[in-house]
Amino acid sequence: AEMSQGHISVVLLGATGDLAKKYLWQGLFQLYMDQVSSGHSFTFHGAALTALEPGQRLMFDVLKKLACPPDESPNRCAVLKDQFLKLSQYHQLKTAENYTVLNREIETLLRQEGLKEAGRIFYFSVPPFAYTEIARHINSSCRPPPGAWLRVVLEKPFGHDLQSAQELAAELTSFFREEEMYRVDHYLGKQAVAHILPFRDQNRQFLDPIWNQHHVERVEIVLKETVDAKGRTSFYEQYGVIRDVLQNHLTEALMFLTMELPANVSRAEEVLQCKLQAFQSLRRLQKNSAVLGQYQAYTSQVCEELQKGPDYVSTTPTFAGVLIHSDSLRWEGVPFLLTSGKALDERVGFIRVLFKNRAYCTQSETLRDAGHSQCKAKQIIFYIGHGALNTPAVLVSRNLFRPVMPKGSWREAAGQSEQRIFGQPLSDYYVYHPVKERDAYSVLISNIYHGRKDFFITTENLLASWGFWTPLLDSISHQPLRLYPGGVENQHILDFEMVSGEVGFTMAEPVELLKQMPSDYRTVQSKFRQSPLVSAWPEDLISQLASDIEKTASRTVAHSGQFHLALSGGSSPVVLFQRLARHHYAFPWKHTHIWLVDERCVPLTDMESNFLSLHNHLLQSVRVPYFNIHPMPVHLNQRLCVEEDRGTELYAKEIMALVANASFDLVLLGVGADGHTASLFPQSENGLEGAQIVVLTESPVKPHQRMSLSLPLINKARQVFVLVLGKGKHDITTLLSRVGHQPRKWPISGVSPSSGQLVWYVDYEALLG
Amino acid sequence: AEMSQGHISVVLLGATGDLAKKYLWQGLFQLYMDQVSSGHSFTFHGAALTALEPGQRLMFDVLKKLACPPDESPNRCAVLKDQFLKLSQYHQLKTAENYTVLNREIETLLRQEGLKEAGRIFYFSVPPFAYTEIARHINSSCRPPPGAWLRVVLEKPFGHDLQSAQELAAELTSFFREEEMYRVDHYLGKQAVAHILPFRDQNRQFLDPIWNQHHVERVEIVLKETVDAKGRTSFYEQYGVIRDVLQNHLTEALMFLTMELPANVSRAEEVLQCKLQAFQSLRRLQKNSAVLGQYQAYTSQVCEELQKGPDYVSTTPTFAGVLIHSDSLRWEGVPFLLTSGKALDERVGFIRVLFKNRAYCTQSETLRDAGHSQCKAKQIIFYIGHGALNTPAVLVSRNLFRPVMPKGSWREAAGQSEQRIFGQPLSDYYVYHPVKERDAYSVLISNIYHGRKDFFITTENLLASWGFWTPLLDSISHQPLRLYPGGVENQHILDFEMVSGEVGFTMAEPVELLKQMPSDYRTVQSKFRQSPLVSAWPEDLISQLASDIEKTASRTVAHSGQFHLALSGGSSPVVLFQRLARHHYAFPWKHTHIWLVDERCVPLTDMESNFLSLHNHLLQSVRVPYFNIHPMPVHLNQRLCVEEDRGTELYAKEIMALVANASFDLVLLGVGADGHTASLFPQSENGLEGAQIVVLTESPVKPHQRMSLSLPLINKARQVFVLVLGKGKHDITTLLSRVGHQPRKWPISGVSPSSGQLVWYVDYEALLG
Repeated sequence: AEMSQGHISVVLLGATGDLAKKYLWQGLFQLYMDQVSSGHSFTFHGAALTALEPGQRLMFDVLKKLACPPDESPNRCAVLKDQFLKLSQYHQLKTAENYTVLNREIETLLRQEGLKEAGRIFYFSVPPFAYTEIARHINSSCRPPPGAWLRVVLEKPFGHDLQSAQELAAELTSFFREEEMYRVDHYLGKQAVAHILPFRDQNRQFLDPIWNQHHVERVEIVLKETVDAKGRTSFYEQYGVIRDVLQNHLTEALMFLTMELPANVSRAEEVLQCKLQAFQSLRRLQKNSAVLGQYQAYTSQVCEELQKGPDYVSTTPTFAGVLIHSDSLRWEGVPFLLTSGKALDERVGFIRVLFKNRAYCTQSETLRDAGHSQCKAKQIIFYIGHGALNTPAVLVSRNLFRPVMPKGSWREAAGQSEQRIFGQPLSDYYVYHPVKERDAYSVLISNIYHGRKDFFITTENLLASWGFWTPLLDSISHQPLRLYPGGVENQHILDFEMVSGEVGFTMAEPVELLKQMPSDYRTVQSKFRQSPLVSAWPEDLISQLASDIEKTASRTVAHSGQFHLALSGGSSPVVLFQRLARHHYAFPWKHTHIWLVDERCVPLTDMESNFLSLHNHLLQSVRVPYFNIHPMPVHLNQRLCVEEDRGTELYAKEIMALVANASFDLVLLGVGADGHTASLFPQSENGLEGAQIVVLTESPVKPHQRMSLSLPLINKARQVFVLVLGKGKHDITTLLSRVGHQPRKWPISGVSPSSGQLVWYVDYEALLG
Repeated sequence: AEMSQGHISVVLLGATGDLAKKYLWQGLFQLYMDQVSSGHSFTFHGAALTALEPGQRLMFDVLKKLACPPDESPNRCAVLKDQFLKLSQYHQLKTAENYTVLNREIETLLRQEGLKEAGRIFYFSVPPFAYTEIARHINSSCRPPPGAWLRVVLEKPFGHDLQSAQELAAELTSFFREEEMYRVDHYLGKQAVAHILPFRDQNRQFLDPIWNQHHVERVEIVLKETVDAKGRTSFYEQYGVIRDVLQNHLTEALMFLTMELPANVSRAEEVLQCKLQAFQSLRRLQKNSAVLGQYQAYTSQVCEELQKGPDYVSTTPTFAGVLIHSDSLRWEGVPFLLTSGKALDERVGFIRVLFKNRAYCTQSETLRDAGHSQCKAKQIIFYIGHGALNTPAVLVSRNLFRPVMPKGSWREAAGQSEQRIFGQPLSDYYVYHPVKERDAYSVLISNIYHGRKDFFITTENLLASWGFWTPLLDSISHQPLRLYPGGVENQHILDFEMVSGEVGFTMAEPVELLKQMPSDYRTVQSKFRQSPLVSAWPEDLISQLASDIEKTASRTVAHSGQFHLALSGGSSPVVLFQRLARHHYAFPWKHTHIWLVDERCVPLTDMESNFLSLHNHLLQSVRVPYFNIHPMPVHLNQRLCVEEDRGTELYAKEIMALVANASFDLVLLGVGADGHTASLFPQSENGLEGAQIVVLTESPVKPHQRMSLSLPLINKARQVFVLVLGKGKHDITTLLSRVGHQPRKWPISGVSPSSGQLVWYVDYEALLG
C-alpha cells in the first residue's frame, strides 16, 4: 500500500470472553486479511478487566488458534497471521487511568510511525451493565483527534423493554453521536438475511406485481434451536425467547420483508425511514397474538443455577409463536408468523414467503408437467442455515420466476437432489448458495470497517421495535405457558393455528399437563328477578346470546320485513359484536336497523364513542345499509350535546318515523356496578320517567355528558336482553336478585317491559362470584 | 300386499329411444323390484310414434335384456322380470285418438281388476319440440280421475336461454300444475351429489364453524369428459358446454353447496326457497368470468355432420372454466370454479371444497405424524364417479373431522390404498362409498314414485338458473375460443387462473392456434378542449378510468393521509362503481371520503336517489367508514330541499370542515346531452358563478329539484375527470369540441380547474358516433 489511507485502531473490550473467542477475533483476523492491501494500517487492542499478564496469556491462547479460511492460500495466511499477532496487544482496562494510558499509547505509536489517524473502533463485547462506565471513559479519554472517526460497536441486549431501552439509549447518546454507534444484530450479518433487500431490489420486475396482500398467502419467520438454556439461565430467566430472538433477529427480518423499498437500498438513511414506516403500520399485538411454551426441564434448571426454592415456578417462555399483521395497504390481511424456541426437534432458521395459488389445472395431476404446472406451491425462501440444507440459500419456486442473483457472490446449486423441502422436491426450486460462506461476524466487522450503517440497528429502529413488543410482553407476563418435553418428543404439542386474527395451539393440552378445569360447562337456564335467566361461562353465554339475537331478528324480519335493534355501548358488548360479525352469516343485516341505546357526548370518531366501537367491531364487517344505521346526534353544528341543537328531539323524531309504535324489536342493555343501565344513572333527573323518550343525562364518570333512551321507551320494547359479565358485577347482581322496583336507586331495576319480554344473560362470575 | 294402496300406471314416451334403452327401462324394472310389496300395483306402458307391431318388437327386445342387479337373488329377479314383462305393453301414441284410447285402456283395466287408481306417471323421453303436443294430449285425454295424482317427467334441454325457457315453462304451465311436473337433472340422482345436502345437515356440528368465507379457500365443481361431440353435433352445435353441463348439472351442485340449510332438508319447498335465495346472491357474470375452448376437430365434425361449407367456423365452446362469486355474507370472496369440457385427458366428476390452511406446524416436516398434522391440506370431496377412484365417494381429510355418515347407505372404505388423490395419499382421508351403487336414473325414478320433488328442478329454479347464465352466454357469443388438440395432448393449454375476480388462461396462446384479433384494441390518448383525452371502447375506458382513480387515491393518501372524492349520479358511473367495487382491492377506502357532486331532492332510499345507486353499487361492497360517507342533506326535518332547512349551508359547512381549502382531490363529472354537468343546467340561476359553493337548482326533467356543487367549487378541485359514454352523447361531444367557455349555454364548458387538472374520458361511440 503506497498511499497510506491512515491508521485504524481496533479495541476489543471483553477480549477474552466467549463471543470474542468464538467469533470476534476470527472476524478481526478476516478483516486484516481482506484489508491488508487497502492502504489502511491497523493495530488490534484486546482489553479486559484481567490484569496484564494473565490477560495477555489468555488472549494469545485465543489468537494462536485463529484459523485460516479454506479459500485462502495457506502460505499467505500463515504470514498474515504472524503479522496479525504482532499488531495485537492486550490492555487491562478497569480504571479511568487505564483508558488515558491506552489513548496515550495509541497517540505515541502513531507519532512514532508517522501515521495519520483514520479512526478507532471500540467493540463492546461486555455485559450491558458495564456499558455506561466504558462509554464515559471512551468519551472523555479515548476520542480520536478531529478528522478521524470513532465507531463504537454494541452487542445486545439493548434493554429489557421500551422504558429501559430508552434509558440506555439516552445514556449512550450523552456520550456518542448517533453515527458513532453500531448496534449489532448478528442476524443482519447472516448472508441470507443480508440478501433480502438486495434480492427485492434486483428482482423488482418480478416482485412488483406479487409482493403484496393479493398474492402472498403467509410469511413464516422461524428460528428453531435444539439446545436449551442450561448454563445461561441467569441471562435467559430475565429475558425469555421473545426478548432474546423475536424482538431483534426475527423483527429485523420482518422489516426487510415488509418495508417499502427505497429507491436506493444501500442508503442507510432511506432504508431506516422505510423501516420506521413499516413499524408504524404494524397492528398492535394482543395477548392472543401469541402462543407461549416452556420446556419441562427449564424450571428445575433455573432452580439449580439460580438457587431458587423448590416452590419456584418460572414464567419465562422458551417457545413463542406470534401472529403479526401489518395494516399497510400492501400487507393488510397477510399473516406473518414469527416463531422461535429452545429444545425443539431441529436447529434451523428460515424466512418463507408462501404465495396464494390461484390456478386451476385442467390436466389431471398424474399428467402434469412440473415445469409448467401453475398448481404447485409457489414460494420464496431465505434459508439462513442449519436444518436440512445446512447452508445459507435462497430458493425460488420454478413456477414463480427465475431470479436475478449477483453473479459474484451467489451461485446456482449444481446437480439435482432428491431432497424434499417445504413440501416439495428441491428440484421444484431455483436454488442459490453463497459463493463464499461467511460467518455473520466477519460480515459485520467488514461492514463496520466500511461504515455501512444499514447493517446495524439505529436508536430509532431499536426503540420502534421495543415500542412494538413491549405491550405484548406486558400483557403476557402472567399468561400460562404450555409445557413441552423437548426435542422430537414435542410431537405436535407446539403446533398452532390462526383463528380470526389470533393464534392458539391446535391440540388440546395433554391431559397429564392439564390444569383443573371447571366441570360445570353447560348453559344454565333459570329465573332472575322473575324473568328468564341464561347463565354460562362467558364464551358460551355470548354465543348463546348472539344466536338468540339472530333468531329474534330472522323471526321479526320474516314477520314484518324489518328488525329494529337498539345496542348499548361499553366493553361487554364488544365480544358480542365480534361474534355477530364473524359467526352469523345468515343474519338479516340488510333488513336490520341499528339504533344506539346511549352515547357519550364526543364526536362519533372519538375513541370514547359507543358508535365508534360498534362501527369498528360490527358495522365494518357486515352489510347494514347506510340508511339503517342511526347513530345518536350528539355532535350537531360542530358542538356536543348542546340543548338548543335539540339532538334528543331529532333522535326521538327519527325513532317515531321509523319504528312502529316506537317499540323496538330488541333492546340490548348492560348493567353498571352502581346499577345504572343505558346512560341512566342513579338519581338521574331525566329519563327514569316522563314523556321524553330520548334524554340528556350526566354520568358520574367521564365523559360526563350522555344521551340515552329513556326507561319508559326501553320498557315499550318487544324484547329486552340484559348482558352482565364478570366478577366485577357480582355484587350488583347479588343485590339485584334481592331488591324490587327501585329505578331511582338502581335504574336497571326499573327495566320491566310493559308487554315485551325480558331475558337476563349473566355469566357465572357475575352470578356466582 | 294385502291392503291395496292403489294402482300406478307408468307411461314411458320414447320407449324405444336411446335414453330408455340405456337407463329408463332398467330404472323402471328396479322400481318394480323395490316396490312390488309396497301395496301398489303397476302397469308399464311403453309408447312411441312407431306403429304397434314393430314398436312392440323393438320394445320387448330392450325389456328382454334387463339386467338383474348384483345385490338381488337371481331367482327372485327372474320371477320379477317375468312379471314385469307381463305388466308391460307397447302403444303407438301419435294422434289425439291414440291418447284417448290409451286412457280408455287404463280405465278398463282398472275396472276389470277392481283396482283403485293411485296415479299416473308420464315420462317424456322425447325431443323438446314434441313436448307441447304431448302435453296437450295428456292434459285433455289422459288425466287420472280426481283423487289420483298425475306426474309428468321432463328431460332437458329446458330451453336455450332465459326467454326460451320462460316460453316453454309458460306453455307447460298451461297444461300442468307445478306440482305435477318433474324436471330431471340426472346429476341430482348421482349418489355423491344427492348426498351433499344430507351431509351438510348431518354434519352441522363440524361444518357450522367452517362452512364459510373465513375457512373455505376455493371450491371446484368439475365434470371432465374424454369423449367428444362426434355424432351429436346437431344437438351440441346449438348448445355448447355451458348449456349442456354448467347451466344445469354443475349449477345444481353449486346451489347445494352455497345455499343456507333449511331446518328440514327433506322439505322440498324449504330447499327451493333457500336455493332461490342462493341464486339471488350470485354476482352477475361478465365476459371475463369465463375461459372458453374448442377441441380442434370440432369444426370439421360439425361441417361433416351438418353439411356446412368449408368456410364455416363454429363458435360453440366445448370447454369452459367459469369463476363464480356469491355476494352472500357466508361466501363473499370465495372463488367457485365450474369447469367442464369434451376431449379432455380423463373422464371424472367431482366437487371439491378446499379449506384454508391456518396452521403452523412447529415439528419439522419429516417428523410430523400425518394423523395429527394440521398442516396438511384440508378438503371435502364429493366424488361423483369415474376418474382415479372409479366409484362414487365422499372424502373428508382426516385432520378436518370424522364425518357422520348414514350407516345404511354409505360405508367407510376398508383397507389402505397407496393411491394419491388431490395431492395427497388416500390414507389422509376418511373415505366412504355407497353401500349399493345405484344408477342415477334408478334413484330418480324411485324419487318420482315417492313424490320427492326436492330431487327435481322446479320452474322457479330453472328460470333462476337461466337468468344467471343468459347474460354470460350473450356476452361471450362472439368471444374467441382457445383451440385445443384433445386428450393428453392438451398439456397445460387449458389451465387457467384467477386475477382480480376474472379468469384467464395461464399460458400464452400457442402461436399456431392464434385467431385473428381485432387490431384496434388500444386506448387512444390525445387532447380534447385543450385537456388530456382518454378514449377507448366502453369496457376498456371504464377499466382505465377506475385504475386512474385508484392511482390518484393511493398517491393522495400516501401524501396527505386521506382522499376526498366527489362522485356524480346518473347511469354511466354505475359501471365504474361496480368496477371499483370488484377489481380494486388495494383501493385505500379506509382513508377515502365520499362526497356527492349532485343529488335529486328525493329521500335517500328512493330509487331515484343518486346516493342510493352509489350505495348499492359501490358502498355496500367496500369498507368506507361510516363517518367518511357524506350524502347530500336533501331530506331534513322530513321534507325535501326546503330553503329554510338550509341543507346547502349544512353541506358547505361539512365540506369546509373536512376538505382542506374546500379543494376536492378528485371530482368525477358526467355530461348531459344538453351540456349540463353536475346538476347545473343551461341558464341556471344558481351555481354557475358566485360565492355559494352548494346550491339548489332546477332540472328541466323530473325530479325537478336538485342540490349540486357549484361550478366555482368544482373548479377548485385538484383533479376533475369527465366521463362521457355512448352514441347519445355524440352530438354534444362534437359541439363541445368546437365551442369555447360558455357556461350559461353549456355548463360543462365552464369546467376548467383553476390550478387542478382536467381529464376527459370519452368512449369511441360518443367521440366518433
